[in-house]
Amino acid sequence: MSETVKIALIGLGTVGTGVARVVLEESERLTRRCGKKIEIAKVVVRDLSRTRQIDLPPGLVTDNLQEVLDDDSITVAVQLIGGIHPAKQYMEQLIDAGKHIVSANKALLCQHGTELFARAREKGRTIAFEAAVAGGIPIIHVLSQAMSGNQITAIEAILNGTSNFILSEMFLGGRSYEDVLAEAQELGYAEADPTLDVDGTDAAQKLGLLVQLAFGTKVTLDQFPKQGIDTLPLEDLLYAYELGYSIRLIAVARLVKDELELHVQPTLVPLDKPLAQVHGPNNMIALEGDVVGKTWYQGLGAGQNPTASAVISDLVDTVAGRNELIFPFMDLWNEGKQLEVMPAEEIRRRYYLRFNVLDQPHVFAEMADVLGRNQISLASIIQHETPEAPEANGDSKQVVPVVIMTHMTTEGRIRAANEELSKLNSIREDRVILPVLD
Amino acid sequence: MSETVKIALIGLGTVGTGVARVVLEESERLTRRCGKKIEIAKVVVRDLSRTRQIDLPPGLVTDNLQEVLDDDSITVAVQLIGGIHPAKQYMEQLIDAGKHIVSANKALLCQHGTELFARAREKGRTIAFEAAVAGGIPIIHVLSQAMSGNQITAIEAILNGTSNFILSEMFLGGRSYEDVLAEAQELGYAEADPTLDVDGTDAAQKLGLLVQLAFGTKVTLDQFPKQGIDTLPLEDLLYAYELGYSIRLIAVARLVKDELELHVQPTLVPLDKPLAQVHGPNNMIALEGDVVGKTWYQGLGAGQNPTASAVISDLVDTVAGRNELIFPFMDLWNEGKQLEVMPAEEIRRRYYLRFNVLDQPHVFAEMADVLGRNQISLASIIQHETPEAPEANGDSKQVVPVVIMTHMTTEGRIRAANEELSKLNSIREDRVILPVLD
Repeated sequence: MSETVKIALIGLGTVGTGVARVVLEESERLTRRCGKKIEIAKVVVRDLSRTRQIDLPPGLVTDNLQEVLDDDSITVAVQLIGGIHPAKQYMEQLIDAGKHIVSANKALLCQHGTELFARAREKGRTIAFEAAVAGGIPIIHVLSQAMSGNQITAIEAILNGTSNFILSEMFLGGRSYEDVLAEAQELGYAEADPTLDVDGTDAAQKLGLLVQLAFGTKVTLDQFPKQGIDTLPLEDLLYAYELGYSIRLIAVARLVKDELELHVQPTLVPLDKPLAQVHGPNNMIALEGDVVGKTWYQGLGAGQNPTASAVISDLVDTVAGRNELIFPFMDLWNEGKQLEVMPAEEIRRRYYLRFNVLDQPHVFAEMADVLGRNQISLASIIQHETPEAPEANGDSKQVVPVVIMTHMTTEGRIRAANEELSKLNSIREDRVILPVLD
Repeated sequence: MSETVKIALIGLGTVGTGVARVVLEESERLTRRCGKKIEIAKVVVRDLSRTRQIDLPPGLVTDNLQEVLDDDSITVAVQLIGGIHPAKQYMEQLIDAGKHIVSANKALLCQHGTELFARAREKGRTIAFEAAVAGGIPIIHVLSQAMSGNQITAIEAILNGTSNFILSEMFLGGRSYEDVLAEAQELGYAEADPTLDVDGTDAAQKLGLLVQLAFGTKVTLDQFPKQGIDTLPLEDLLYAYELGYSIRLIAVARLVKDELELHVQPTLVPLDKPLAQVHGPNNMIALEGDVVGKTWYQGLGAGQNPTASAVISDLVDTVAGRNELIFPFMDLWNEGKQLEVMPAEEIRRRYYLRFNVLDQPHVFAEMADVLGRNQISLASIIQHETPEAPEANGDSKQVVPVVIMTHMTTEGRIRAANEELSKLNSIREDRVILPVLD
């Protein structure tokens, strides 16, 4: 007979239901993987009256967290409720009551991770959070164990499946953002309120967690540029393709000397890079280490089963006692080693610029002059022929798009040029400026 | 002061030198990752007189394994010599002397793993072998920890970087196998004797290890079809591309009912699959689990630094005591749960066939008749126009290639048809038959 370990599930939503199903249906498999029998002793829900998609043994479900806190036979709490409150208070109470934690809450850990991790460490307890970043991709295992020999030097990642699904479908179907978003909501790839997914917040929170782990540095979302895909016109996906690029929502953390370059933005990715070839709701993380070089990880970033798989792997590690030998060595707290975040203006890269300009003499010269004075040099230009207007005398007020790829420059120069360009009457306000990932 | 753990390196070739360098130069980093100081106490080499690419502290190097066996203060042996003998005897002696093992020897573990793993288990010692499969890709960590919630249902993988480099370069440069092999040898991507890489043996050994771990089943190389890239003509890479496929050396292990489908063969991969987009000496593993779905892992499969990174992660896990909580639960021995290997004839898939036929009446009918009688149905056919021979009367003895893609069929039917086709005078012997990965 294997020893039995009692656990509690806090939250029985989509992921909680998936986790409960695997623990109940694959009990023998999990015992084989950790040498102990995992028993769900309590399930804490907010609303007892709600119907559930899973049949649980009677007497398990409660709406009172105190029952878990008071039960010393429960040693692990799988905390699967989202948001900051009451998730934070629950987690603190659970840690204080001596439970090890498994969590999928990226928002909470990104914002309050440092204090929660330290609190767990003080109490000799562990927090596992594989499911908080990139769903079924085991990036936390990779960073905390498989890359021990390395200093991570760069992370380039697609961390939001909703945004990636929308960008893929817009491009493949020649469809608008609004049209694809509606489909994504129907398919369950986007929430009813998709704001946090499509405005880059979700990806930025996940990047924050990865940065904490890979660089031992706590960053907040206001420290780096963050832009979503919710304002991206279809036509830029098409121009990018014409230039040999795909546009993806890319999160970057890169060690440049002793500073961290950080940003989450729709970004042009050369078509032959693995990140350009990630379709649908998949995520991908490209990791660069100073010993291993580059490695890539791809899989579904969300959804009941991929996320449940991540939670279960943490649960098994915790029950087997492994996490007590992993968690203390993760770079989750820092003693003076915090890296500085590079000021946005100093970020160096190439840019894609699309200006809608009046089709009249001297406009191109004005535009080129502004870029030139800001020391931005041009690598390529697309301006497609437009039909000659009937009264065409070179003085029509037709608006034409001009697409420019720059050579390497800085965000500061681009911002300064953009400021100047906004003062020219011949260039409309709907400018599109996107970085390039090389 | 951190506790010090003494280790021995057995072998100081390319990988051993890389490992020694990281342990010596990144001592502080490794201490931070496992809480203990790792000290190289002995380095065992075969030839003391050989010059080395690394400066070791004096007194470390010996050609006598016994010095390690007799030194009880050395608790971990990093065994980095290849081949079966004397590697097997060394490993047995080291286990019997109470050392934990870190090894990169895929040939040894594929052939004698079961007995060596059991021996270690009996002695309460561990064997870690991340570096034995796919170099810098942490697939062993993924399988043994991150996928605990899953039964793995399929592995599709590029496991030999030399073969992948050669196939990429042949296609991109329109070059012959021999030409690219010579370049690969110059670049260090291929050994002086490349046989085991290009004939599929290396990939098959790695697949054997993955199968042991993912399915708890020991397989030997004679139990499944194995074919290398060393006989693949350039023109089939080009025909495949015309049809929308890339040819890669693909290792497959798939659970089909209660049997294991296994093979290592040059295989047509649809261009939009991640496996088709792996270039140069990279490896990729596509893993399917019954909970997580599909995930993909890519990186360099060999080379000093990627392999050293894998060895170091095992070393850190071992020194931290983690491997004692991982190794006992890996599916590396079996008690009656061995799966059967599916007989090759029953493997179901589509095929690419290229026949060089005499350009004369009725040849196509004969060929189609043989395929039809073997219940192989044709999905598409390419026969390019050839210049009319001067004396062309439909009875020339010109040889023309005919390329056929079949619908789903079995290896058995293909073999039977091939047997019959070999008796037709109108079809030359140099037939090319390759499977398709869907």
